[in-house]
Amino acid sequence: MSNCIFCKIVAGEIPATKIYEDDDVVAFNDIRPLAPVHFMIVPKKHVESLLAAEPVDQALLGKILLLAPKLARENGLGAGFKTSINTGKAGGQEVFHLHVHVYGHPN
Amino acid sequence: MSNCIFCKIVAGEIPATKIYEDDDVVAFNDIRPLAPVHFMIVPKKHVESLLAAEPVDQALLGKILLLAPKLARENGLGAGFKTSINTGKAGGQEVFHLHVHVYGHPN
Repeated sequence: MSNCIFCKIVAGEIPATKIYEDDDVVAFNDIRPLAPVHFMIVPKKHVESLLAAEPVDQALLGKILLLAPKLARENGLGAGFKTSINTGKAGGQEVFHLHVHVYGHPN
Repeated sequence: MSNCIFCKIVAGEIPATKIYEDDDVVAFNDIRPLAPVHFMIVPKKHVESLLAAEPVDQALLGKILLLAPKLARENGLGAGFKTSINTGKAGGQEVFHLHVHVYGHPN
């Protein structure tokens, strides 16, 4: 998606502090953190939101939820953290490329 | 888990307003709703939290994230909703059986 800011981060066209990357996903720090540690896990594939996710995305979504605790542990949140997804304008979504927020206080 | 309140809901030993059930998961209304529509999607398998999830749970986790928009649509949240998971005491988790909150205002 040519105008999607997260696709541009995935492509390296916009800088971001990446904390993880593989063939399917990238994770980077939120530029407006809600807590001392706050990163987002984003599929490289452009999926607009959970409302646009399809059965073929099941493994990718599961992978993201398994990555959340792994990356949380690596970033000091091994005792706990919050995970949230905003879906649709009515759900507070601002960037229309699926992203999973992970945040908390180092513990 | 004999003392787990969500395992008891899964087993039908404690009443809950179930809005969905299949072999793997159950969804029921939160008794302390944060919004006019607020339900939780819970795996029938006792997984304590995201920190306790294992690679074998990937498909189950993906299924839950695909169910969230499906059930949201069916419950009036087709224009948007919030999804959240609290992990660990430090992440605000109160019941130690993995549960995914889905909530919002009918739209």
